[in-house]
Amino acid sequence: MTYCVALRLDRGLVFMSDTRTNAGVDNISVFRKMHFWRSEGRFIAALSAGNLATTQAVISLLDERSKAVGERVSSVLGEPSMFQVARLVGDALKEVIKANAVSGQNADSAFNATMILGGQVGDGAPRLFLIYPEGNFIEASEDTPFFQIGETKYGRPILVRAFDPAMSFEDAIKLLLVSFDSTIKANLSVGLPIDYLVYEADGFAPTHQGRIEADDAYYQTISSGWGDALRTAFDSLPPYTIKG
Amino acid sequence: MTYCVALRLDRGLVFMSDTRTNAGVDNISVFRKMHFWRSEGRFIAALSAGNLATTQAVISLLDERSKAVGERVSSVLGEPSMFQVARLVGDALKEVIKANAVSGQNADSAFNATMILGGQVGDGAPRLFLIYPEGNFIEASEDTPFFQIGETKYGRPILVRAFDPAMSFEDAIKLLLVSFDSTIKANLSVGLPIDYLVYEADGFAPTHQGRIEADDAYYQTISSGWGDALRTAFDSLPPYTIKG
Repeated sequence: MTYCVALRLDRGLVFMSDTRTNAGVDNISVFRKMHFWRSEGRFIAALSAGNLATTQAVISLLDERSKAVGERVSSVLGEPSMFQVARLVGDALKEVIKANAVSGQNADSAFNATMILGGQVGDGAPRLFLIYPEGNFIEASEDTPFFQIGETKYGRPILVRAFDPAMSFEDAIKLLLVSFDSTIKANLSVGLPIDYLVYEADGFAPTHQGRIEADDAYYQTISSGWGDALRTAFDSLPPYTIKG
Repeated sequence: MTYCVALRLDRGLVFMSDTRTNAGVDNISVFRKMHFWRSEGRFIAALSAGNLATTQAVISLLDERSKAVGERVSSVLGEPSMFQVARLVGDALKEVIKANAVSGQNADSAFNATMILGGQVGDGAPRLFLIYPEGNFIEASEDTPFFQIGETKYGRPILVRAFDPAMSFEDAIKLLLVSFDSTIKANLSVGLPIDYLVYEADGFAPTHQGRIEADDAYYQTISSGWGDALRTAFDSLPPYTIKG
């Protein structure tokens, strides 16, 4: 499995992804699931969940095309809007899945993958998309200002309760770490290290990025502190009374 | 879907179940998923998730057999231990699923169901079992002192963090309501009203039981209070710092 989240804040976008891939619980590896491309007036980031061969092929395809300078191929660095970038990435995803599904072995949609795409092109606002294996996609809105892919359930309640589009980037990373910690504690196929990337609107470059390893002091503080904080929160609720 | 939880506490057992059943999101109903049987020196409770026709048939079968006084049929009220009761319930569950699977329509394990069985027989301690559609089962232990069935993921993090086998029955019900609230907020197929039952060891009768409706004042306090408590807990964690 995988766990990736992207938030659309008033200030910009925040991305976080785990790095564990597995083929059975006895075969785990570390792979980056976060990638980005940038050029003058353009920043595009992608998170991926699903079949690793598929997501790597999509990223490689997008990478190669973005470097084919002067050639007449459409590229994430050449499209005029985030909507067109999302169409291009959706098409690449569909193309890779279809190529495997037709010419490869039968494997019951095991070639499927889902992606989160976020970024900003020129004068447009930062936008966030969720791209399905079928190549179509939906966009984050005020009502649903974040997307999760992979193992989404354990980490969702805290996102739903504490997310605020006006929050700072610092609070957003703290929130995502709590969400990731709940997920990592519950699902072995989601694991550290964690990659993160903060994109401030109109910056057209990562504002802040890095990788959180298992021995990271702040992560450990959050992980152990959240248990205590939850128990305190629980104790703060009014008691239930059994009428005797 | 469904959400049912049973806790094994030092003091006894606590059961909670939602009541929503659905065949598609446009066809929902309210059905009790919690049942119990009692007699002198014996208390047995069952929670069920899965195909409603299957679980109702299992409960009816167990009910009929428990009332067949003097007849030579094994009954949840006649077995000498909780282990034997679990075998009997497991056999009944397997029997009903198999009967549908063989003579009924093909429906890709749509007849499946899972049950939680808890109770106490005579001098034995209260015991808790999770019964699989295959009829076999596992028992709660000190390491894993509670079972969930149905939509288990959203409500699990708070159980893992705040459960304590030494907790009071009052705290246990409060904890379960928080877990149910997180689940109900995230999954439409889990819904109020909620049934609960507290069994104190050696009581051989329900200590406390009832149904929580959507307009229950305490449930509403927990539901709205938990959001605030979570945000306070989140704010109490040390801030993340972006090194500029």
